[in-house]
Amino acid sequence: MAEHLSQSELDYPFKLLEYFNGFRISKAIFSACELGVFDLLLQSQKPMSAVEVAQKLGTSEDGIERLLDVLVAIEIVDVEVVQGTAFYSSTDVANLYLAKTSPKSLHDLIIYNSQTIYPLWNNLVDAVREGKNQNEKTFGLPSEEIFSAIYRSEEEMLKFMGLMNSTWVIDGHDIVTAFDLSSFKTVIDLGGCSGALARELAKEYPSSTVTVLDLPAVVQTAQRHFAQQDDTICFQEGDFFEGEIPPADLYILARIIHDWKEDKNLKLLKKIHTACHPGGGVLIAEALLFENRRGPTMVQMFSLNMLVQTEGKEHPPSHYTRLLTDAGFRDVQVCRTGKSYDAILALK
Amino acid sequence: MAEHLSQSELDYPFKLLEYFNGFRISKAIFSACELGVFDLLLQSQKPMSAVEVAQKLGTSEDGIERLLDVLVAIEIVDVEVVQGTAFYSSTDVANLYLAKTSPKSLHDLIIYNSQTIYPLWNNLVDAVREGKNQNEKTFGLPSEEIFSAIYRSEEEMLKFMGLMNSTWVIDGHDIVTAFDLSSFKTVIDLGGCSGALARELAKEYPSSTVTVLDLPAVVQTAQRHFAQQDDTICFQEGDFFEGEIPPADLYILARIIHDWKEDKNLKLLKKIHTACHPGGGVLIAEALLFENRRGPTMVQMFSLNMLVQTEGKEHPPSHYTRLLTDAGFRDVQVCRTGKSYDAILALK
Repeated sequence: MAEHLSQSELDYPFKLLEYFNGFRISKAIFSACELGVFDLLLQSQKPMSAVEVAQKLGTSEDGIERLLDVLVAIEIVDVEVVQGTAFYSSTDVANLYLAKTSPKSLHDLIIYNSQTIYPLWNNLVDAVREGKNQNEKTFGLPSEEIFSAIYRSEEEMLKFMGLMNSTWVIDGHDIVTAFDLSSFKTVIDLGGCSGALARELAKEYPSSTVTVLDLPAVVQTAQRHFAQQDDTICFQEGDFFEGEIPPADLYILARIIHDWKEDKNLKLLKKIHTACHPGGGVLIAEALLFENRRGPTMVQMFSLNMLVQTEGKEHPPSHYTRLLTDAGFRDVQVCRTGKSYDAILALK
Repeated sequence: MAEHLSQSELDYPFKLLEYFNGFRISKAIFSACELGVFDLLLQSQKPMSAVEVAQKLGTSEDGIERLLDVLVAIEIVDVEVVQGTAFYSSTDVANLYLAKTSPKSLHDLIIYNSQTIYPLWNNLVDAVREGKNQNEKTFGLPSEEIFSAIYRSEEEMLKFMGLMNSTWVIDGHDIVTAFDLSSFKTVIDLGGCSGALARELAKEYPSSTVTVLDLPAVVQTAQRHFAQQDDTICFQEGDFFEGEIPPADLYILARIIHDWKEDKNLKLLKKIHTACHPGGGVLIAEALLFENRRGPTMVQMFSLNMLVQTEGKEHPPSHYTRLLTDAGFRDVQVCRTGKSYDAILALK
């Protein structure tokens, strides 16, 4: 059970007011990313004044100065005042996670949160009332066809793929090393999107063959925008719900199950079980709720997010264990990584 | 200068991800308020299951359960699990600040943040680029006439007045006791809106006559919706920019200056100085930036908020001192309350 906010909150609601201000902090960081603030500060050889930043980014001086001052307050940008003029520079954290060019950049995750999820959450009241996603009210898109909404244009597809890519850039290594997967020689990442998680796996297990199977349009976009020189993974076009699932030793389902209702997931896992080589398995990557659903806070937030955006939700480990067992898998093992996403391995 | 986020953030960006999640926390609380969750839990004699809450509020069971679980995680709602069923109850903090019926309710502040400011901040990028408010892009309203936008309908006027009212319910006492105002026998709160701050002043200084002067439509709405039995204050219809300012010992300008550009504010203060009885004064209530603009964080956020919504900004004390001195006032005293809003007193 959660402890209450401290008693002093009854004297003055500092913490509550901080919660109310949360959307402003998110949007300040998101907007700085969209404007290219962190890229500019990284590239600059020296600290820059607000006037210089405004000139380079084509913004108002007053607006960018207020934004930079907020970023300083939350310790994402650094400042030095010389003879009354503030000179701003980047911090290590911003250079690593917020600049677009960093290999660990969360830029695409931020763009997706800012441009898609933030407006969707403006309709949270209706999502809770209706118990369904708000793609229709927010973007005029059919609420029943989640991925028709998410993939409504190449630009939107690219944004969503960027989101997935960002996640596995910071969480992928923990997922592929949660268990020793070296015995699985052929691996298929079902719905593997940009291939970021598959690449982490191929790097960790160089003797395995790793294939991303995804919708034709996704595979084509992945090859156009996310391909790497000497890429260590293959792409295959397909539809794992409607079409065939090729045989393999290990299947990965990373952030797939949480999008859908139980019957659809069970059908999918049975189909995977049938295709799987004997002794093979399935690796699920999801954010796991505690068994009693009382945390982690971030996963509870993700689950509410799934309501607003999909037809699925987040679950505790027992849910996945039951689903996997019902589909015919055995020896289910759960690994909490301590990061955003956790791993579950089950064998055929 | 702000300290950096801790070095461990470079290993995994927990704090950054928390910042990115800020908008979800804000909207979860806002939405629970809008749905009446806190009122229901306060009125209920016993803890309620998600099913019961859903029935009473007319929401989906699944949606309200996920929302309640998030509120538990952030310690605003309490939970007890009995034989596998979660029963939710309110906390002291929620009863005091989030239930609509509480005398310290922030309900109206939340509604305004949720329905007006949250959507405005979706256009923060444009606000920074253009250096101006986003009333036009967000709501199709002219950006030059701030209060035509804010007061575009009686419903919107009521929401804005509720926001102001909420603030002074929690901050008003600190403002009126920041200085001994007992020598000022006639007090006019210019733009005093619902009268919440004026009532705090009348309560603290019962021998003073306190009048709220505001636009006719605002006064009429205040009397219809915010009047109290045996009200201790008077209302007067007027326009302190365009019309006359009646003589008085003390004028209050609470969150007025920060809406407007400097020339307009200086003109207003000169006009007040002319109307003011000899030995009288003006009391300004605003959130004060530090002199070097490096904080407080919340005030920097407010200043960015002013960009998105008005033509003004927040300032450090020296700005107000200069403005007041230029208008003819003397003996400027500044009092930081340690809460959201601070007080400045100047004499004629």
